Amino acid sequence: MAVRLGRQTVKLTFPPAFIGTAAVVGKKEGEGPLKECFDYISEDSYFGEGSWEKGESHMLLQCFRTACDKAAKTPDAIDYVLSGDLLNQCVSSAFAMKDSGVPYFGLYGACSTMAESLSLGALLIDSGAAETVCAITGSHFCSAERQYRFPLEYGGVRTPTSQWTVTGAGSAILGGGQGPIITNITTGKIVDAGITDANSMGSAMAPAAYDTIMAHFRETGRSFDYYDAIFTGDLGAVGHDILQALFHDDGFDPGIRYMDCGVLMFDLKTQGVNSGGSGCGCSASVLCGHIVPAMQRGVWDRVLFAATGALMSPLSAQQGSTIPGICHAVAIENTGRN
Amino acid sequence: MAVRLGRQTVKLTFPPAFIGTAAVVGKKEGEGPLKECFDYISEDSYFGEGSWEKGESHMLLQCFRTACDKAAKTPDAIDYVLSGDLLNQCVSSAFAMKDSGVPYFGLYGACSTMAESLSLGALLIDSGAAETVCAITGSHFCSAERQYRFPLEYGGVRTPTSQWTVTGAGSAILGGGQGPIITNITTGKIVDAGITDANSMGSAMAPAAYDTIMAHFRETGRSFDYYDAIFTGDLGAVGHDILQALFHDDGFDPGIRYMDCGVLMFDLKTQGVNSGGSGCGCSASVLCGHIVPAMQRGVWDRVLFAATGALMSPLSAQQGSTIPGICHAVAIENTGRN
Repeated sequence: MAVRLGRQTVKLTFPPAFIGTAAVVGKKEGEGPLKECFDYISEDSYFGEGSWEKGESHMLLQCFRTACDKAAKTPDAIDYVLSGDLLNQCVSSAFAMKDSGVPYFGLYGACSTMAESLSLGALLIDSGAAETVCAITGSHFCSAERQYRFPLEYGGVRTPTSQWTVTGAGSAILGGGQGPIITNITTGKIVDAGITDANSMGSAMAPAAYDTIMAHFRETGRSFDYYDAIFTGDLGAVGHDILQALFHDDGFDPGIRYMDCGVLMFDLKTQGVNSGGSGCGCSASVLCGHIVPAMQRGVWDRVLFAATGALMSPLSAQQGSTIPGICHAVAIENTGRN
Repeated sequence: MAVRLGRQTVKLTFPPAFIGTAAVVGKKEGEGPLKECFDYISEDSYFGEGSWEKGESHMLLQCFRTACDKAAKTPDAIDYVLSGDLLNQCVSSAFAMKDSGVPYFGLYGACSTMAESLSLGALLIDSGAAETVCAITGSHFCSAERQYRFPLEYGGVRTPTSQWTVTGAGSAILGGGQGPIITNITTGKIVDAGITDANSMGSAMAPAAYDTIMAHFRETGRSFDYYDAIFTGDLGAVGHDILQALFHDDGFDPGIRYMDCGVLMFDLKTQGVNSGGSGCGCSASVLCGHIVPAMQRGVWDRVLFAATGALMSPLSAQQGSTIPGICHAVAIENTGRN
């Protein structure tokens, strides 16, 4: 049974463990600082398929299978898969999972999807509805560019505040077993700071990250000091700095324990990604390839994973609408220190 | 605590009640057979906004507020909202809910979204994570036509198997109180029957409805006889007849207790909708405007609500992909007969 700690936060009574994680990424991501962390780095942006969209789906399926394998579970042993992505109508998830035979909950949380799927998946286990679930999401630079911005062939110049959609997928099998556990879940409200620049997503999402992280602290009685590391999803360098400034305004200095997955994914000086990585696959592959494995090695024992999403579409931007943001936070802890 | 009855079905220990439902629809829907059922019928396809997409969002917000009002709850008393829609990146839901202050789970289940949101919402209550949730979804003919098919101005001729996207929204507040309760949840697997005709969605979704409904019977030990009425989401006349044929092939004759929301929404002879209604808003507004209120009046005591979705996009259709279907089923029962 989940215990409500406040408006947005619940504490799990039967916290599930990360029993298998996998991260599959593209070539550029495999040349970045986290290159040693990924299970598979594809040299081919099509992942052997005939289109980028089909390649994205292939990447998700490969990631799902790898996570199942690392958890020593067949798809038959997975009670639910919770998945979503950035493509219109979330087709890369649907096509990846369509032959799996696993009961399927489709999600749309933009780049917050990994935290949303972990939240709902952990709650399904805590409730007894499931023993084992898979949370999975991903994104693809090429399919995202042509859907959200311009055809790649156009060669449009990118603004300094823009981010680079990560080609990558992350998949986590949650269930009973050894591994870091999900202890608390803080679900985001939508926060609209009035940003309208679709090339500055970090600015649009940082206020949502601030709102959710502060709600988490308020409702759990925890503070920055409690956590060894706090990761936002994909605010990039611009959003990271805005969030730091918001913390500072409140008299908090998280210091180096606060990191952003979009900043970690690439070398911002040399890889030409401007403000950093973005996309569902950014925080998902950093979580599943880097954060959880590092926790398993004892690098950190208490982590707050706060994935962020921008709830807009190209059409809403064209119609002059603002860019509402959302952030879902999941507390991940090594059992030994609970 | 939810009790697993099988691969796809769970039984709720603390089944939540429908404590408030609302349905808001467009003019054409308000001229159909269910016209007396809806809380509000708009004469204006823009719902007073400057675009159809903003109108869709307005409709969802109006529906949310009406349901809250009928449940005598303010948004502050709603623990989670679970919402999704058909627009790219689910923007009509996000913009509808962005100022509500309610923790938000975005879903994408295509036209199955109402059953998906009820499923996850009921499980959140059963688990103790929530006391009160809102499940809400909708669709809009004009925004869907130009996104999925052609600009309305083009005046394209529609095939006999095509369906008419319902302009409508349905919202259900689940929680403790009087009203029909959700007792069992059967979550769909994705079923791909190999259909590629994007103008025959009923054909693509009927096999998924069959799969989920038969799984529900197998895992609960129930049969057609148990239910007073069984509703599929929006198979339309074509999909309804395919599903009937699939039942007959197995030796079952559900008779008149099996109905489809897409068939019920319009007068198929006179309203020019070909195979019937479709869209997230079809099953949502029929459930919230017609089915649940009829259960409250004692017309039916045991209902299986099986909303169906086609997990495709215009791009996946253009790339020659099949149309995978999904169906989530929710058993709704009047407490008196449990």
